[in-house]
Amino acid sequence: MNNIVVQKFGGTSVRNLECMKQVLNKVRKPLADGNKVIVVLSAMAGETNRLLALAKEWSHTPDAAELDSLVSTGEQISVALFAMMAKDEGLRARSLLGFQIPIISNDSYGKARIESIDSAKITGMLADYDVLVLAGFQGVDPGDRITTLGRGGSDTSAVAVAAALKAQVCEIYTDVPGVFTTDPNICADAKKLDRVSYDEMLEMASMGAKVLQIRSVEFAKKYNVAVHVRSTFSDEPGTIVTQEDANMEAVQVSGVAYDKDQAQVTLVGVLDEPGVCASIFTPIAESKILVDMIVQNPSKDGRTDITFTVPRADVDHTLKILEALKKDIGYLALLSDRGVSKVSVIGVGMRNHSGVAAQAFRALRDENINILMISTSEIKLSCLIEDKYTELAVRTLHQTFVGSEQQ
Amino acid sequence: MNNIVVQKFGGTSVRNLECMKQVLNKVRKPLADGNKVIVVLSAMAGETNRLLALAKEWSHTPDAAELDSLVSTGEQISVALFAMMAKDEGLRARSLLGFQIPIISNDSYGKARIESIDSAKITGMLADYDVLVLAGFQGVDPGDRITTLGRGGSDTSAVAVAAALKAQVCEIYTDVPGVFTTDPNICADAKKLDRVSYDEMLEMASMGAKVLQIRSVEFAKKYNVAVHVRSTFSDEPGTIVTQEDANMEAVQVSGVAYDKDQAQVTLVGVLDEPGVCASIFTPIAESKILVDMIVQNPSKDGRTDITFTVPRADVDHTLKILEALKKDIGYLALLSDRGVSKVSVIGVGMRNHSGVAAQAFRALRDENINILMISTSEIKLSCLIEDKYTELAVRTLHQTFVGSEQQ
Repeated sequence: MNNIVVQKFGGTSVRNLECMKQVLNKVRKPLADGNKVIVVLSAMAGETNRLLALAKEWSHTPDAAELDSLVSTGEQISVALFAMMAKDEGLRARSLLGFQIPIISNDSYGKARIESIDSAKITGMLADYDVLVLAGFQGVDPGDRITTLGRGGSDTSAVAVAAALKAQVCEIYTDVPGVFTTDPNICADAKKLDRVSYDEMLEMASMGAKVLQIRSVEFAKKYNVAVHVRSTFSDEPGTIVTQEDANMEAVQVSGVAYDKDQAQVTLVGVLDEPGVCASIFTPIAESKILVDMIVQNPSKDGRTDITFTVPRADVDHTLKILEALKKDIGYLALLSDRGVSKVSVIGVGMRNHSGVAAQAFRALRDENINILMISTSEIKLSCLIEDKYTELAVRTLHQTFVGSEQQ
Repeated sequence: MNNIVVQKFGGTSVRNLECMKQVLNKVRKPLADGNKVIVVLSAMAGETNRLLALAKEWSHTPDAAELDSLVSTGEQISVALFAMMAKDEGLRARSLLGFQIPIISNDSYGKARIESIDSAKITGMLADYDVLVLAGFQGVDPGDRITTLGRGGSDTSAVAVAAALKAQVCEIYTDVPGVFTTDPNICADAKKLDRVSYDEMLEMASMGAKVLQIRSVEFAKKYNVAVHVRSTFSDEPGTIVTQEDANMEAVQVSGVAYDKDQAQVTLVGVLDEPGVCASIFTPIAESKILVDMIVQNPSKDGRTDITFTVPRADVDHTLKILEALKKDIGYLALLSDRGVSKVSVIGVGMRNHSGVAAQAFRALRDENINILMISTSEIKLSCLIEDKYTELAVRTLHQTFVGSEQQ
């Protein structure tokens, strides 16, 4: 905890001069309170896609390292422009690129992981500058080649720098006021959360609440960085993502999430022998397909049904893999259903409140929504349902757990 | 001298995919002969100006260091795209940025001078790669900030790398076939030179022959790098810029240059006292105005006339400076003439051939062209004439010294 504040702004916040001036106003606030500010910027909206399109034109299989060097120019442009503007406005500001610190990552180009940040170099610079404008999304590998951290990587840059500097807070500015109890587009009762735990945020992010990149939350949790998700367009406080505390546990459920990008695959009449699950899921995992829920029915006459979910875009690939395995596994039929979605209730309070599952099942039953599959964790309950009931299920669960509490 | 060839291509050569493919064909030639190739690229045509315009929009006085970081992305994009294309085509290629070598320069942002190049790093990479695609125009200062070498700086990058690696040759590809004896647009008899000395090239470049950036020629001379200026659009050999040899000295005159960007300023009746020249030219030099020719008439009655030339764009500024000095210097009148130009004959052979001046004066007299001022160096004779005679003078001098020789 010191006098350093990290602020991260995404592509829409730096897309033109007018927006950048708003960013400058955000930067002035912690400065006025006597803090130093590390501003982490993304590329201007559209720039990364423009560069990717160029690469596609030039090469049918763009080399991953060259692609990273190419797209990293987007952030380089943002930070240079912002730093020159800030200097014009009288601030002691300069830009900082990944290699200049350095932010060392591994060499997994396109999805590199940060390995170390030279915090002494940064704190040394803070003697000469009040504002350091850091290019998000980028690092260098140990061989000095530029890397990028994957989509949403600027969030991770910001959290990582905040961790390295033990900053007071890492503010992530977005176009929404914070993290909501559910999707306000579906449920008018959705409420902004003042605080949410890292684990809850991880569950919500992976459920499709896209305000914060999931890897940045993992990073924040690991290094205990307080992340403040808030709006670029208002001064209202947003949502603080932080460690669990007793207050949080008093609340049963923090939010209701959903994910429509789901499909269900069923192997009917699989020979129930040791190792059959490994035979099924190893080749799927090797194809980088993410299996989420898995259910195995009780065996009957030496055969069982195995049902699982995969992202919708991967169904065809999954079916192809399983068809190729038919004679090894010896199943009777292969079924798939793209018309499913997943709704989840999430909350660290679920640990101490029994009956959440029963309550959820009752709520869904009252609306005649059939549950196809169930999975649970310590802080989450997920139900697979028919796609067409998604919005109704979200509203029902939200009313049951969040709406009623706040009355 | 080793198996390394440096090739530099300008912005028009990398402006689109089609052009880049032509560049790739140029690269294949030395590769086929068993060489390694360092390809130095500029930004795609128009990109640097696009970035400068952005800076102008964002800032009324863009910070020089930020500006360099901004515009250096132009070359970064070119080299990434070219390297990924070359890799697609089966070449062992990668891009190289200034900081990755590093190319260390001083911190004169916007016009930095190269101080050192880590040639061991480059030769080490040549064990793994056959083609290194180097971003021209850029370096880093000792504090790791990105610098640029000024307009035309990619020529300098190429020559500097060729010098550091003791490359066989540094090929500079342009849209003309080489260096000509004079401007082919003025004189149909203009011939491509097979060879030209560094000193001649320096005189021609400063006269406005724009095929090669003047600082790169100074660099080539200092480190004795053979520079081959040639066309991107043909396989014909171009012009080799190299050390003088006996053959060159056998030729009286290598070329005829001209410069229309001239203006003449005359101080009439200056008091002829010690130090008066210093009083006149010190404030002009301090305003970064380049004075070229200077003539002082013999003194008469304690007063003299001083005439000199400056670039046309600087006349008003020069006159303002001199008007402010009137009471210190005590001249009678201040005259200026924007309607003048300079024609020059250039050749290392002039050292051993007397009579070039006399021959030139006769040729101009035969066309009734009046000579306003004369200046000479070991390898150059320049005459200031009325602007309207420029083309006629060039043709006449070319016919006299070059045309007749080759008959």
